[in-house]
Amino acid sequence: MATKIAITLGDPTGIGPEVVAAAIASAGELVPRLVVYGDRDPLERGAAAMKVSLPADLALVQHGGGTFTPGKPDSTSGAAQVAYLEAAIAAAVKGEVGALVTAPISKTWAKKAGFAFPGHTELLAARFKVDEAVMFFAGPRLKVALVTVHIPHKNVAGALTTDRIKRVVELVAESLRRDFGLPRPRIGVLGLNPHAGENKLLGSEDVDIIAPALGALSFEGSWDGPLIPDAAFRDALDGKYDALVAMYHDQGLIPVKLIDFDEAVNVTLGLPIVRTSPDHGTAYDIAGTGKARAVSTQRALSLAAEMLSHR
Amino acid sequence: MATKIAITLGDPTGIGPEVVAAAIASAGELVPRLVVYGDRDPLERGAAAMKVSLPADLALVQHGGGTFTPGKPDSTSGAAQVAYLEAAIAAAVKGEVGALVTAPISKTWAKKAGFAFPGHTELLAARFKVDEAVMFFAGPRLKVALVTVHIPHKNVAGALTTDRIKRVVELVAESLRRDFGLPRPRIGVLGLNPHAGENKLLGSEDVDIIAPALGALSFEGSWDGPLIPDAAFRDALDGKYDALVAMYHDQGLIPVKLIDFDEAVNVTLGLPIVRTSPDHGTAYDIAGTGKARAVSTQRALSLAAEMLSHR
Repeated sequence: MATKIAITLGDPTGIGPEVVAAAIASAGELVPRLVVYGDRDPLERGAAAMKVSLPADLALVQHGGGTFTPGKPDSTSGAAQVAYLEAAIAAAVKGEVGALVTAPISKTWAKKAGFAFPGHTELLAARFKVDEAVMFFAGPRLKVALVTVHIPHKNVAGALTTDRIKRVVELVAESLRRDFGLPRPRIGVLGLNPHAGENKLLGSEDVDIIAPALGALSFEGSWDGPLIPDAAFRDALDGKYDALVAMYHDQGLIPVKLIDFDEAVNVTLGLPIVRTSPDHGTAYDIAGTGKARAVSTQRALSLAAEMLSHR
Repeated sequence: MATKIAITLGDPTGIGPEVVAAAIASAGELVPRLVVYGDRDPLERGAAAMKVSLPADLALVQHGGGTFTPGKPDSTSGAAQVAYLEAAIAAAVKGEVGALVTAPISKTWAKKAGFAFPGHTELLAARFKVDEAVMFFAGPRLKVALVTVHIPHKNVAGALTTDRIKRVVELVAESLRRDFGLPRPRIGVLGLNPHAGENKLLGSEDVDIIAPALGALSFEGSWDGPLIPDAAFRDALDGKYDALVAMYHDQGLIPVKLIDFDEAVNVTLGLPIVRTSPDHGTAYDIAGTGKARAVSTQRALSLAAEMLSHR
């Protein structure tokens, strides 16, 4: 697999240029393998705001210019962030890059520029023509995958299927074995209902939908569930599980953001390439000020390189 | 208000007698105010297992005996735990005790003994004839109240009402002011949906049901919401809010159990008396071994005394 790592600049009026500049400045020996998809002006302004220097020989695929003002998104920045992303993905589909690190886009402004996807993950699934992509958060203390993501709370129970849950666990197990050096991963699968339904007294999906997925699994490693959700994260933190599979967005992300805060990296599982991203948004309110914290982007970049080394 | 504190022994075959014995043994100057509702035999066995001594002059309301074996619940233990509870509540209704600290019951065995309530909270609401009781978890780092409790995940959205949310926030505010010494409490109210619905893209309840409750509030203090659930707990931990109001069981209890583990105390708001309990179950698997951790019961007792001092 190609060893090049593409980095998209994200919304050039958000904090993307700052966190990307800071991550590149601290990338050390990875620099020759990096290709930035974005305009030079905002990247250089990001570097200045973060008080870092960019490598002189940095590979950069210019989009074509435009004037971007931090904190002031418009149709030009909306179109630019989509163009960066599509160019980087096209290079990945052609096999020119093996990993993709994406800075945050504005869904609102991307949509105005014709972007027809809820987010990066769905776009990547479409461009790589894969049926199942999985959002997986890898932090230093917790690793959590999501079965459902951006849907209303009331639709979660109806969206769960035994097949999807089984596939998510399999993709997590595959990634833990290949990318994280865990030959026999131990995966905990959460229940949906309080107390995991307490023998169907508090809901039936734990027994009727989740348990059959666990019964159908077969991989080198171990799995356990449906786990009582309010006990499982403590068990994971205490080392009982290498990763957890959560049934819905906040079930997974409340603990990830509480415990791993801005150190968690968003990883897309199920693609033929590596894809990581920082776990934050465009943060227009601080864009251009140099106040952005680059730790999640730095971790996204180093994790992408680490994962790529096992492919 | 009466200054006596009733302690129920809970299921005499669970860890109740051990955690109650340990809490009494460390209660110091509170001992003369305590009244235990439970049988002497299991309490003394609990003290022996925990290697603590009970005060010689401990007030104890004997239920009537029976033989109880740790880890072996039966119809006798099922009936006993209900009898302890009803006797203690009757004393509280009569005004003889001002606070009630309850050790865990077995819902299964209590039900077999004719107990017709999902749990302590619902029984207390019925006996005190109050319409709205609120489950509130007070830990050293997080304080969280629940709008809905033991219902299936798929029923949560339909169970939320603007009136209930408003009432829960009011009861939390009242308790923070009176019981926790916070004259101007700052309360965060969580959204239901991922990203608090993102302007109804991911669900409508945040805007249609929760926001109107916030708009109708009026008390000395401040409130904020509907908050993005996966960011709000970090903000609370960082000191931005004195307490959070969660829409459903796991939204509140996943972070409470992760952050405050076995130090959180379950407090019932909305009753004319103080009621606290440890935040764990009967734990039959370790009953009688002395391995139980009494910290939550000790905190439940000291918090009950502290709350009672403000009434």
